[in-house]
Parts: sequence; structure tokens; C-alpha cells
Amino acid sequence: MSKLQIGVAGLAVMGKNLALNIESKGFTVALYNRSSEKTKELLAEAQSKNFVGTYSIEEFVQSLEVPRKILIMVKAGKPTDDTINQLVPHLSPGDIIIDGGNAYFPDTERRNRELESKGIRFIGAGVSGGEEGALKGPSIMPGGQRDAYDLVEPILTAISAKVNGDPCSTYIGEGGAGHYVKMVHNGIEYGDMQLIGEAYHLMRDVLHVDADELHNIFTEWNKGELDSYLIEITADIFSKKDEATGKPMVDVILDSAGQKGTGKWTSESALDLGVPLSIITESVFARFISAMKEERVAASTKLSGPASQKYEGDTAEFIEAVRQALYASKIASYAQGFAQMKVASEHYGWHLNYGNIAMIFRGGCIIRAGFLQNIKDAYDKDPALNNLFLDEYFGGVIEKYQVTWRKVVAIAVTRGIPVPAFSSALAYYDSYRSANLPANLLQAQRDYFGAHTFERVDQAGSFHFQWLQNND
Amino acid sequence: MSKLQIGVAGLAVMGKNLALNIESKGFTVALYNRSSEKTKELLAEAQSKNFVGTYSIEEFVQSLEVPRKILIMVKAGKPTDDTINQLVPHLSPGDIIIDGGNAYFPDTERRNRELESKGIRFIGAGVSGGEEGALKGPSIMPGGQRDAYDLVEPILTAISAKVNGDPCSTYIGEGGAGHYVKMVHNGIEYGDMQLIGEAYHLMRDVLHVDADELHNIFTEWNKGELDSYLIEITADIFSKKDEATGKPMVDVILDSAGQKGTGKWTSESALDLGVPLSIITESVFARFISAMKEERVAASTKLSGPASQKYEGDTAEFIEAVRQALYASKIASYAQGFAQMKVASEHYGWHLNYGNIAMIFRGGCIIRAGFLQNIKDAYDKDPALNNLFLDEYFGGVIEKYQVTWRKVVAIAVTRGIPVPAFSSALAYYDSYRSANLPANLLQAQRDYFGAHTFERVDQAGSFHFQWLQNND
Repeated sequence: MSKLQIGVAGLAVMGKNLALNIESKGFTVALYNRSSEKTKELLAEAQSKNFVGTYSIEEFVQSLEVPRKILIMVKAGKPTDDTINQLVPHLSPGDIIIDGGNAYFPDTERRNRELESKGIRFIGAGVSGGEEGALKGPSIMPGGQRDAYDLVEPILTAISAKVNGDPCSTYIGEGGAGHYVKMVHNGIEYGDMQLIGEAYHLMRDVLHVDADELHNIFTEWNKGELDSYLIEITADIFSKKDEATGKPMVDVILDSAGQKGTGKWTSESALDLGVPLSIITESVFARFISAMKEERVAASTKLSGPASQKYEGDTAEFIEAVRQALYASKIASYAQGFAQMKVASEHYGWHLNYGNIAMIFRGGCIIRAGFLQNIKDAYDKDPALNNLFLDEYFGGVIEKYQVTWRKVVAIAVTRGIPVPAFSSALAYYDSYRSANLPANLLQAQRDYFGAHTFERVDQAGSFHFQWLQNND
Repeated sequence: MSKLQIGVAGLAVMGKNLALNIESKGFTVALYNRSSEKTKELLAEAQSKNFVGTYSIEEFVQSLEVPRKILIMVKAGKPTDDTINQLVPHLSPGDIIIDGGNAYFPDTERRNRELESKGIRFIGAGVSGGEEGALKGPSIMPGGQRDAYDLVEPILTAISAKVNGDPCSTYIGEGGAGHYVKMVHNGIEYGDMQLIGEAYHLMRDVLHVDADELHNIFTEWNKGELDSYLIEITADIFSKKDEATGKPMVDVILDSAGQKGTGKWTSESALDLGVPLSIITESVFARFISAMKEERVAASTKLSGPASQKYEGDTAEFIEAVRQALYASKIASYAQGFAQMKVASEHYGWHLNYGNIAMIFRGGCIIRAGFLQNIKDAYDKDPALNNLFLDEYFGGVIEKYQVTWRKVVAIAVTRGIPVPAFSSALAYYDSYRSANLPANLLQAQRDYFGAHTFERVDQAGSFHFQWLQNND
């Protein structure tokens, strides 16, 4: 029997769908799962395909051509380490393990180091797109040794989503770079969803539009600058009715958001790197508050807000204003996310290519959107761009929309509708374009109580003032 | 020679001042420092005092009465571990190490466990108040074994700040509880400073008041609800002139804020515990943005904001509006900080007493303020209070000030003055009092692309909807 081109270990839905996707592109695939049922099920489902089932780690490894390429699709954390530890004794130097799970990037960095010391190469590959993406074409963010990537590249490119023929998979960088970029992708996804939620909240509570109208609004929005997967499914969601009650689905779903923790990783990394990531972080906190449903319901009977007022303005104008505020805020959120990747790239020595990253986000993944082409174009024009705001296209949009953006936030604030992400996006823009912030006072305070010293506006160096001895 | 009551290891300025403070209260103190110079210096300075210098760890430990009480005041992290490791071989079961440094609370938890397994007791004590507080009376937050605390209590109580005769030191809880509360204290300090900075920014850029006028405004504010150390020093700061230029000190200090990382710990803990802590986190991010001085200056020449407009309203009215917005935002920030301590207390099993914590914050520390008495009163009335907003006094202030608070944020947003903390405080209040947030849409999205399921408003359980098969 000739050796197989790649092995897939872990045949839950993501692993199974990736295996089917790989096989459909003409590669021969060895299958392995800790319990044999899943392997047998998949073989039974896919009898005419180039799959070979294996039932021990040894058999699995021995079935593969050298250098071996093994994609593991198991739960992040201990299960991933366990699978790697089971594989290692059977591998040869130069073999490649690809972790397609949702690993925390410091784990990927560690695994890469540990395996490299044993001569094994390791690719941490972020895979986005859910079950459907895995089967039909996900967005793939592979990081690790470049020479290992080159060997698996034909497979990853083949199975990835395509946009205008371009694959949504590219080499990201050394070590944990791939899983880092996947993490930021997920953080951006949190931001996008919160921003859409705030737009919905404003239209619902100011205009009192119903689900059918919201379906029409989001359908329209999806034809313009906001064209994206999340806007598309939002439009679709508003069209769905609950069978039991006949009500729109959104109206029978509880406003208590879950989360799997990947959003907060992005915020924690931003805090560690000293990068402002307020919009995504506000989005994480907004999920936390939403989950305090009982406490909120109790508080709503005790705490007052502004009296509800009929909106006197033009409805279509308000809807367009909300759209502009959403797009401007979305730009600010991506500006933060890409700025964070830049700092991370310099900190970890990854040499990230931001244009390529924008390009592979265009298809397959949850945040896929038309405007990622504009981000790609911005980095093509200036690969060292410090902030998306400084690009001509994005700067132009903000220039054009900012009066409206400010108006929408002011209306929300006045009417008591919480827009933490819209307003932190605006505060970020206003802070970033401010030559002078009030941090001079803060430095004075720190020097006053803690002798932390300060810099001066008129000369270099570090200064301390004797605050208590200088009583003018 | 009779044995001494307590030893102080680490005689940099904080350790030295605490040793002087302890001795001044009538306790006998053994001194030890890694290099002998500091010990000799202190002895030379304080010849008539009850100090005994020791010059080896063994001599230091042997000079103390049993069970020994040893306060270590060295840098957080490895130096703390090194000092503990040097002490342990010489200690007897039941001896007590007190870490008065700025430890990260998980380190304190670990040290407490490790030492307890060796029969040594460990108190992680947060100490706030800087050099001056250490000497004259700091706020102290001791956590660890209760029986160990009882033995060191007379010393801690004696040296702490006093407010109306009440000591600003109390037992916080087991393990790392003391350092946790100190961490939240520091986070709250970040929030207070950012909020004051935003108030300053608004008055500076809307009213164009100068430092002398700001001195008067903050002096007035310090006589009312905002009465606090930080407002007091802010008033004082605005009165100081730079000798070289004759300008106000604030105008020669660069608006680039430093930080030592303790603020971000509070945010990271909030993210880990699932608690919304947006105001402090925005304050941490605001420091990050302030430090991007060059990038901001460059951006300011490319990115536009609203045209600067003369303020047409009444000046005194605007100043009062900013004061109300500042106080309301400050209440929201403390509401978040105390809510976080509540979740942490339940998570770690600490049984924190929030009223006592507010009480010891009233003196000695950086965030000392009159309104902490109101927080103490709130928890006296309801020790299980979920949120400060729900207290009659605080709810009443927000009720009274919210129209103005909203107006100030709307003005800032319209005029392009970044107020990330003011606006996140308001968004927090509006989210917390909302029975219905837009997270129903978010749950629909998560179920749509990831089959994450949702809860319903009308029945218990976990549901999934076949979004793609239900095309109404």
C-alpha cells in the first residue's frame, strides 16, 4: 500500500469536515480518532473516497509518507497536548504537526519550541468559518516554521475559501503568529457583533421599527459599504419566525450573550502590549452585562432613565445616520485590531503582512466583508501604515461621516440607550487625532504623590518637581 | 538581649519609612537589608530608636521573638520569592512573613500555599499611601491566615492611618485577598485620575480656562461631594509655576502618561471573572494612547475634527455640569470596582466585607475621599448590595445628575473632545438599568453561524434554530 499524503487526527465535526474538504481536493487522507466509532462512521459515509481508517497511533503514523503531515483537530488545551504527546514517540525528525484547533497563542509558541527541540515541525493554524467553512472552504491562518509551511501549503491553499480566485490562506509568521491572528480575528468578530447590536438597539428603541423593517434595512445595508457575512445573516435572522408563537425569532430569544473566552484573550493581549483596544474590550464587557439578565431586570425597576420621547426627525435620515455611525465605528475597531497586530508583530518578531491578513479575512471566515479589500489596498499603498485612519479611503469616510456619527452617539446618550462600542470608537478617533490630551495633569499627579517623574514639552529628559516645597 | 517584636527586611524608602512608623508606635524592630549600607544609614539616622541592625539572615531571624513576625518590603516578583526562600530555612513553624510589597495577587495565593505546606504563615498586605503614607500612616489591606493576622494586628492597626479615630487597616480575607483589594484600589485610582483628566480637558478646551481658574474650580470642588486627596492635589498642582519659564507647571509637562502595570491587572482580572470593568479599562487604554505622543501629533495634522466653536452657554453652569458628570462617573467607577470585588470574593471564597474595605480606603491611600463614608453606609445598610447604584444615596445622586451628565457627554462628543471614561460610565449605567439589551440578536447570530444555542424569553432550556432551513 502506498503511503498517504496527510493524516487527520480528531474526527469531531470540524476534523471530519476538514478531512472531507482535503480529500475532495484530490489528497489521500489517513483518519484517526481516539474512539474508533467516529472513524468507522466517516468511512461508512464516504465509501468511495480516498480515506484510510487507522485504529492506533502507530498505524496512523506509519500510514503516512515522510515527512509526515498530521492535522490535529481536537479541543484546545490539554487534549491538544495529549494528542501531541501520543504522536511524538512515533514521529521522525522533519515530520509536521498542524494544530487546526482554537489554541491560545502562547500555547502554540510553547508547543512550537518544545517540538522543535525534538526535530518535529509545528504549524499552529487558525481556522475560521465554523462547520460549513471547514467543509466548503475556511479562512486559514497558518504560523510556524516557514519550511514546514511550504510543504503543507498546497493542501492549505487547496482547501481554503477563494475570493475572486485568491485563496484565503497565507503564511502568517513564526511560532504562534497564526493563532495570534486568529485570536484578533475573533476579537474583531466580537466588535462587529456588538456594533451591529447597538445599531439594532438604536433603531428598535428610537424608531420602534419591527423585525420585518429591520430585515429590509439590513438587506439594503448589505448592498453597500457594510456588505459582509454578519450583516447578511442579521438581515436573514430578522426574517425568521418562531413556529410556536408566530413571533419573530429575535423577539423570543433571551438577551443574554454567551462567549467562549477568545474575545477576552485579545483584550488581555492588548493590555499586555500596551495597545488601546477599547472597542473590542467594551464588546466583551457588554456580553458580560447582557448575561446579568436577572440583575438588570431588577435594576430596571429601581433606576430611572430619560423619559421615552417620540423621535421627531426623519426616519430614513436616522436609519442612514445609524448606518454611517456603524461604518465609522467599524473602521475604528479594525484600526485598533490591525494596530494591535502591528505592535504584536514587532514585539514577537513575526513580520506580519497586514495586507495579506486582510486578504485572507475576505472569505471563509465570520468577519468576511467587502471593505477588507479597502484594508488590503491601504496596506498595499503603505505596508508600514500606523493606523487605518491615516489611509486616504478610511480617513475620507470618517471625514464624511463624523458629524453624523457624533449626532448618533449624542442622541443615544441623551435618550439613555447604551452605545459603549459606538462611543468608545468615537473617543478613540478623537484621542488619536489629539495633539494634546490631558495626560499632563495625570503625570503631575503621579509625580506629586509618587515621585514618578515626568517629561517636559520643551526639553528632553526626566523631571521631578518638589510639589510640597513650592507653595506659590 | 531580649528578642525583638518585629523584623523589617528591605530598607528602601518604603521599608525604611514603615520601620520608622512601627518603631514610633513603641515596637522594637530588627532591621535587615541585602546590602548592609542601608541598614547602617538608617541606624545612624535614628540612633535613639528601638532598632537593632542585623547583617545576616540568620542573625536577623534569631533576633526575633517567637512566633516571628517579619515584614518584607522588597520589589514584587522574583526579589520577593528570593527573600522568602532565604528566610524559610531559618524559620520555625508558626512564624509569620508579611509581604507589604505590591505583589500580583496570584503570586500571593501561591506563596501562601507553599509556605503553609511548610508550617509558615503568610500575610499578603497591600500598603497604599506612598512614601509619606508609609511613614505617617498608610492604608493597609492584609490578607492571609486569620490567626496570623490576629498576631500582627496590633502593629498594623497602630501604624495605619486613622480617620475619626478609626484605623485604616482591617483583615481582608484568606490567601491573596489583601493584594487583590490593593489591586482594585489601584485600578480605581486609574479611573479617578482619568475622570479628573476628562473634566480638566473639557473645561480647558470648551471654556479655555487657565491654570489659576482651574486651581479655584478644583479648590471649590474639594469642599463638596468630590472632597478627596486627588481633587486636593489637583487644585494644588494648578497653582504651581515652572521657575524656568514662569508658566504653570501643567503647561510644561508632556501629556504622555506612564504606568507601572497594576491598573491592567485589575482589567485582566475583570476579564477573567466575567465582570464589566469598562471605566478603569478605558482609563488604562487612555494612558496607552497618551503615550503615543508622536503618532498623535502626526495624526493631528491629517485627521479633522469638528470646527472649534465658542461656548455660548453660561460658564458657571458648564463648570457645575462637568462637576456633576465627574461625580456621577466616579460613582459608576466605584460601582464597577466594588461589584468586581464581590464576584472575586465569591469566586475565591474570601468573604470580603465591602463596608470595611470602603472604611480603610478613607484615609492614608491615594483614593481617600469623603464619599467612601457613603459607600461604607451603603454596605452597612445592605451588606449583600449588588451594585452601588441600588443604594438610596447613590441612586439619588445619579437620578439628580443624569440629565446634566448626558448633556456633558453629548457636548464632548459633538465638539470632538474624547471622554472615554465619562461615556463608558454612562453606558454602564444605561446598560445596567436596561431590562432589554440587544444581545438577543447576538445570540441569534452565534446560533446562526456556530450552533451555539440560545435561551428563550418564554421557557427554560437551551434551544437551536435551523436558520438555513427556515426560509420564511
